[in-house]
Amino acid sequence: MIVRRRQTLILPFLMSVMFIHPAPALNSISATRAAFNTTVKRAADVAEEVAAYADVAKQIIELAVSGAAHNRSYRRLADFTDTIGNRVSGSSNLDRAIKYMYNAMYQDGLDVHLEPVKIPHWVRGKESAEMIAPRAKSLSILGLGSSVGTPPEGIKAEVLVVQSFEELKHRASEAAGRIVVFNQPFVSYGETVSYRAFGASKAAEVGAVATLIRSITPFSINSPHTGQQDYQEGVKRIPTACITVEDAELMWRLAQRGQKIVVRLTMEAKTLPDADSFNTVSEIRGWQYPEQVVLLSGHLDSWDVGQGAMDDGGGAIISWEALSLIKDLGLRPRRTLRAVLWTAEEQGGVGAQQYFNLHKVNISNFDLVMESDLGTFTPVALQFTGSDAARKVMEGVVKLLAPINMTKLEPNGEGTDIGPWLEAGVPGASLHVADSRYFWFHHTEGDTMAVQDPRDMDLCSALWAVVAYVVADLQDMLPR
Amino acid sequence: MIVRRRQTLILPFLMSVMFIHPAPALNSISATRAAFNTTVKRAADVAEEVAAYADVAKQIIELAVSGAAHNRSYRRLADFTDTIGNRVSGSSNLDRAIKYMYNAMYQDGLDVHLEPVKIPHWVRGKESAEMIAPRAKSLSILGLGSSVGTPPEGIKAEVLVVQSFEELKHRASEAAGRIVVFNQPFVSYGETVSYRAFGASKAAEVGAVATLIRSITPFSINSPHTGQQDYQEGVKRIPTACITVEDAELMWRLAQRGQKIVVRLTMEAKTLPDADSFNTVSEIRGWQYPEQVVLLSGHLDSWDVGQGAMDDGGGAIISWEALSLIKDLGLRPRRTLRAVLWTAEEQGGVGAQQYFNLHKVNISNFDLVMESDLGTFTPVALQFTGSDAARKVMEGVVKLLAPINMTKLEPNGEGTDIGPWLEAGVPGASLHVADSRYFWFHHTEGDTMAVQDPRDMDLCSALWAVVAYVVADLQDMLPR
Repeated sequence: MIVRRRQTLILPFLMSVMFIHPAPALNSISATRAAFNTTVKRAADVAEEVAAYADVAKQIIELAVSGAAHNRSYRRLADFTDTIGNRVSGSSNLDRAIKYMYNAMYQDGLDVHLEPVKIPHWVRGKESAEMIAPRAKSLSILGLGSSVGTPPEGIKAEVLVVQSFEELKHRASEAAGRIVVFNQPFVSYGETVSYRAFGASKAAEVGAVATLIRSITPFSINSPHTGQQDYQEGVKRIPTACITVEDAELMWRLAQRGQKIVVRLTMEAKTLPDADSFNTVSEIRGWQYPEQVVLLSGHLDSWDVGQGAMDDGGGAIISWEALSLIKDLGLRPRRTLRAVLWTAEEQGGVGAQQYFNLHKVNISNFDLVMESDLGTFTPVALQFTGSDAARKVMEGVVKLLAPINMTKLEPNGEGTDIGPWLEAGVPGASLHVADSRYFWFHHTEGDTMAVQDPRDMDLCSALWAVVAYVVADLQDMLPR
Repeated sequence: MIVRRRQTLILPFLMSVMFIHPAPALNSISATRAAFNTTVKRAADVAEEVAAYADVAKQIIELAVSGAAHNRSYRRLADFTDTIGNRVSGSSNLDRAIKYMYNAMYQDGLDVHLEPVKIPHWVRGKESAEMIAPRAKSLSILGLGSSVGTPPEGIKAEVLVVQSFEELKHRASEAAGRIVVFNQPFVSYGETVSYRAFGASKAAEVGAVATLIRSITPFSINSPHTGQQDYQEGVKRIPTACITVEDAELMWRLAQRGQKIVVRLTMEAKTLPDADSFNTVSEIRGWQYPEQVVLLSGHLDSWDVGQGAMDDGGGAIISWEALSLIKDLGLRPRRTLRAVLWTAEEQGGVGAQQYFNLHKVNISNFDLVMESDLGTFTPVALQFTGSDAARKVMEGVVKLLAPINMTKLEPNGEGTDIGPWLEAGVPGASLHVADSRYFWFHHTEGDTMAVQDPRDMDLCSALWAVVAYVVADLQDMLPR
């Protein structure tokens, strides 16, 4: 356990805290100080302490939902994505995005700095695919992140369509020299994404020359989805792209009828040397324990299609917006609120992993790590990972969201970028939104401002701000 | 009124009819003949006559939904669209589609013939659009049917974004030399499609050099929609294409911020001389009044994107399937059942208009004209246009669909292709399906087999067959 450094109480600020905290525990400074010295507080006391934030939570919510900040997070996201567009790892657009956000948060009056990160630099180049037999039909594709390209003239080969890795195993003898088309059904993103991630190496192991994988989505308007894929060590690297649900099903039906299918795939994709980038960090420093941190985050990079409004512009913007709301109300919590806008999440949480490696030495000062990366639609619940004792505290915190009817705490706070902290035992929270359509747009040209709603973003921002502020301002860090 | 020719009753067939018509009115041949000679039948008698078809309706439904024809209309549609693909007016694909359907219906044992039609021949060619300022962004577009092309180097111009024809009128002085972007909200297809149809001429009237129109859809995954547009007489013809909802909204937001937007539009589109084509007609000839017709229809052409599975492969296939179901049961109605698969509907019902012009001389022999062109999803109701007396008959007919819970008759039977007959007073029926998503896919690359459901197509086919058979077999034509 790290020993906390106590700072001198700043009276004017304390007065403001007392103004909005009329709870018994804060009736006198001496009583408060006595409470600080209790190593293990009674849960009832903490619950009471949390409940006393009802008024400040209401102020934050009102500011976000109907006050001066009404629609602000949506406007910020629109201005950001309209100005920058998408911003894949290694691109000049990502550089511009980082500069844009640095300036925007600086002008907003926050403490901002950049932390250098080396990130992958894969470029798509031109790409196309065409079914040549049994009839000519162009196929909408998106090459997968880290895929190799084809020779300039493309790869022309007969197709083997399979519905699963098991089927591929049974039909391994038919795969040599073929383009393997995976027409796996969509079960869930978490389960089905293994085809995108490992399809190329699984097919290469049995001699395939390329793979075309049904996009990982439950719904499609002939929309291909991109995403990262992972070549397995020691397996030949073959070009791999996603095709649409419609074209995967078409080729499956043709194959079922015994028709010979021939496809030509052309991809210029290549991987360049790693690029320089940054995690973008802004803070409201804690008045009492500035070294202790509640971290809010979303990732600033996106794929190189669409506008990255949903994945994860929204998560990045509400993490900034949460700090703005708190600052605008003249609030400053005991601990530091830190918004981190990660770089190169899409390549496997590259920026976040380097951040963890650099900062894990101070792990005991990380109170709560928060990540929003599944959309900023209507909030449904806060997802939380932590000890039972911490969960008890967080149950009280989400009750403060009663004015927006969002008082549900669910298990399994998670996210690619906060994952390392969670594995190391730091409490973590993520935003559960009404995301039934999230994967319709995910990693497609359809990830734009059109999927975002100003009111929903106000609600997400309010939630994000209340949770972060209250946890950062409690007398004690969350129990581990 | 045309005088009906009475044919000799064919005894074996009549026996089969009697077997499935145990109703009082058919208890003896002489009673039946007496009924024929009553000029105005009592409504109660007709209702009784219709109700007596309950058993035959059940047989048709069982065959389609759970019998040997289960999933057949879906399989037929899949084989047709997978083999042919899309088939725009004037294309060789449309020729192939007509040959395919002629052969398929002939092999199915139906009487098939083709009726020549001259149809428009517009070709899209290559097309692209790119926003150049305030930043580079490619725009997904689909040129509109009958649009002229641009010069080979494209048209590069500043953009004027408007939300309505009214706004364009107010801002007419800003339009000269500009590309006008229409960002009209989607209200309904019927209302909003006027922007696609007339946007180019409205913009050209105030000096615009091209138009980009927000696609006519309530939902988008960055999906552009094509469709026909109509240049107005005496107005300069300027290139016109649809852009996505997302890009229309993006340019509107940029314009709201006062940012200068520049776009380059390049289209090779051109109109070639009219092409030769055919309406494809198959029949089960009536045993008693072969010159009298119940016409079932859908159109065989589509746009040159997607696969034309929904618009209108489904409508064409269930019109064929209805005849197959009746034939397979060994049924033959008094009047002729005629499935007409129209050509060049998308260019304004060209094939259907020529059919009307040719056959209107026999208009009094057209008992009922039916069209399915709004999808073959879950059937909700039969829409009917006709006299009150005819409506009474049809209310009884849809009650026969109780086994599939589809007993609703709605007003306003309609359709582009049956329109001329309806205007001339012929009773008409159209299929109302659960079509809330129809316009999501309409005229896009997403109009494929993926939107079709085998069970729904069975239900549509059963409905189509029961309605057509019963009306065609009643002793009298529907009252006008």
